[in-house]
Amino acid sequence: MTHSVWSRIEGGITAPRGFKASGIAAGLKSSTTSDLALVQAPQGAVCAGTFTQSIVRAACVDLCIERLKISGNSPSVVLINSGHANACTGKRGLRDSLQATEEVAKRLGIKAAEVLICSTGVIGTPIPMDNLLKALDSLVEALTQDGGHNAARAILTTDLVEKEIALEGNCDGRRICIGGMAKGSGMIHPNMATMLGFISCDAGIPRIAWEEMINRIVNDSFNSITVDGDTSTNDAFLAFSGGEVLPEKFWPFLEEGLRMASQSLAKAIARDGEGAKCLLEVQVLGAKNTQEAKHIARIIAGSALVKTAINGCDPNWGRIIAAAGRAGVPFKLNNISLWIGSFQLMKAGQPINFPRNLVSEYIRDKTKGAYLVDDCVTIKLSLGSGSGSSFAWGCDLSDEYVRINADYTT
Amino acid sequence: MTHSVWSRIEGGITAPRGFKASGIAAGLKSSTTSDLALVQAPQGAVCAGTFTQSIVRAACVDLCIERLKISGNSPSVVLINSGHANACTGKRGLRDSLQATEEVAKRLGIKAAEVLICSTGVIGTPIPMDNLLKALDSLVEALTQDGGHNAARAILTTDLVEKEIALEGNCDGRRICIGGMAKGSGMIHPNMATMLGFISCDAGIPRIAWEEMINRIVNDSFNSITVDGDTSTNDAFLAFSGGEVLPEKFWPFLEEGLRMASQSLAKAIARDGEGAKCLLEVQVLGAKNTQEAKHIARIIAGSALVKTAINGCDPNWGRIIAAAGRAGVPFKLNNISLWIGSFQLMKAGQPINFPRNLVSEYIRDKTKGAYLVDDCVTIKLSLGSGSGSSFAWGCDLSDEYVRINADYTT
Repeated sequence: MTHSVWSRIEGGITAPRGFKASGIAAGLKSSTTSDLALVQAPQGAVCAGTFTQSIVRAACVDLCIERLKISGNSPSVVLINSGHANACTGKRGLRDSLQATEEVAKRLGIKAAEVLICSTGVIGTPIPMDNLLKALDSLVEALTQDGGHNAARAILTTDLVEKEIALEGNCDGRRICIGGMAKGSGMIHPNMATMLGFISCDAGIPRIAWEEMINRIVNDSFNSITVDGDTSTNDAFLAFSGGEVLPEKFWPFLEEGLRMASQSLAKAIARDGEGAKCLLEVQVLGAKNTQEAKHIARIIAGSALVKTAINGCDPNWGRIIAAAGRAGVPFKLNNISLWIGSFQLMKAGQPINFPRNLVSEYIRDKTKGAYLVDDCVTIKLSLGSGSGSSFAWGCDLSDEYVRINADYTT
Repeated sequence: MTHSVWSRIEGGITAPRGFKASGIAAGLKSSTTSDLALVQAPQGAVCAGTFTQSIVRAACVDLCIERLKISGNSPSVVLINSGHANACTGKRGLRDSLQATEEVAKRLGIKAAEVLICSTGVIGTPIPMDNLLKALDSLVEALTQDGGHNAARAILTTDLVEKEIALEGNCDGRRICIGGMAKGSGMIHPNMATMLGFISCDAGIPRIAWEEMINRIVNDSFNSITVDGDTSTNDAFLAFSGGEVLPEKFWPFLEEGLRMASQSLAKAIARDGEGAKCLLEVQVLGAKNTQEAKHIARIIAGSALVKTAINGCDPNWGRIIAAAGRAGVPFKLNNISLWIGSFQLMKAGQPINFPRNLVSEYIRDKTKGAYLVDDCVTIKLSLGSGSGSSFAWGCDLSDEYVRINADYTT
């Protein structure tokens, strides 16, 4: 058994063989930007999905969950509209979701149950169905193997950049591709946000194994990010596996690639959080277990005071320790150590003299960058009470976040 | 048994008989504003205290907890410094707290165990002890029955207004006074923030009964507010009861007054949250029980997206419902109703057409006011699944909050 390492290639959701996508402007948003996308997996693909854990779920989420549960049914198509979350829209919410998928199915010659729908945008406003239905012919016609980028653009709301990934690997001579796209920006604290994530893969994996694989990676990717602590009503992550079955010995390798792809998309969402200037990575070491480490990491990454300090390039480490302290996880203050970047600020619970200007400069450098997900402000906290470690990704909190959100609907 | 209603009078912590206070500029802050306060209860007063539940506690909090536990000991004096939280300051933290209280005790001719200390300000910086010690003579000299307002000013950090309250009532001809002062502003999500609250009362209540009374009211006052979700390392609420013992039949009446005073101070903290333009009151009705109602109310009051919407005078009700949905408390979407002010926005889970401009105008009106705690934006959510009800107070999130916190230490 031989396999390569995973390498990043150009492309997105349609990089794997057999996948098609399209994205057009259907007039759903008030602007003229594209707002309707379609992704089609190859015949026989299997789909795994994870969704918001919120009590308040959009009708489209309920529809996806139901269709993924139907035994023997394998959804292979997903319609995605941006601009309107179609959540809290009363009875018409489900009716509209049903109709949209039925009309797509009709045009593709498949069953409605094989079509999923994801919506993102303002809560409480219905999808302008007339415009959506009128656009379906063009949308289906535009389906192509090169359509990934158009789809990635059409699913955005307040996002500033498209979020795409494509990886290629090689298993015993066979080339395997993983593709993905996502959108995020606000109401991002997935408790799989409106976070939408999509992964495609041209290595066939049996349904149950695929579902298990996807559940494992979602926890270390989309469920490890936070922008504003607000879990959305529409969070959805869908992953399609299609094509020739991959021998089981290569599954761990595939899972590694899926994790890389999902983590890259998740970090891209955090980096492009509304108003954000940088990506923040919080590492927690020495916790009693992984769960406690993850919980503390997310609390720190989500703290308004930590996030504003990063925005101000201010090494105000007391806020980091205070956030850890309120996480509800016991630890001994005397055992903790803290770093920002490579600068140690605290050792065995005692503050250390550190070059404040250099730490500020380190943070400032990270806020000047482009939307790169490999460059981030790193906070490392060691609790010294065990061997559990985990991480979370977030972003700084800027006055622009407030301006964006103070008048999003009006 | 006859008693009056409680009525608000001029004054603060020194309104009750026998209480003295002072507040001066000791040079602890970089500015020349006052930063050191002292409150002295009458001989024989009892004190009850509740403190931050954070794992990371300032040394002064530990010291208070310890001294309140000593059987037969009744702390009657509290020293309060602003500017430096003296949290995460290593071993010197406790040393400084001890020394400060010892020096105060010496000047008052009492035991150090009878003196408590509360600190608020930047985490991780020690108190400038030389300045503090030099100021103690003047501070003690300045103790007076009219000193309440000076103390209320000296405990502020980024607060814009002093927070004081005084109530007077009458029990069978006996005049009873309740006084109080507090400070808040940032890192406010008490889980008893740096919230400091102090209550004085000239009706004597036995220690155990007093502690129980104070524990009950703190939950419905200071523990019901949030500014930014960040629980502080230094939260403390101290309540002193002194003077002639009050007959037990009047205790419920007294508790009502204590609740009014504490709620008024708590609301004043939320209203004066960093950068806030208005007070927000979230009422949750029809929950399974009070705890679930309180939990949902605090999640809504703490949602960054709800708070920015209020700041933008935007009736973006979907964010309210989404926040409730992620609280982890089960309810049926079809049963919920929602109001902002007197405008109903949702009924039985269905959105209702509402006069968007009027609701915006309602919110805008509330953001124009002074720091009044009786004027607020009200959100009322009915879950329709039981008879539990509760509430939370918060404030809008403005771009000014971000500016204040982006460079608080530097």
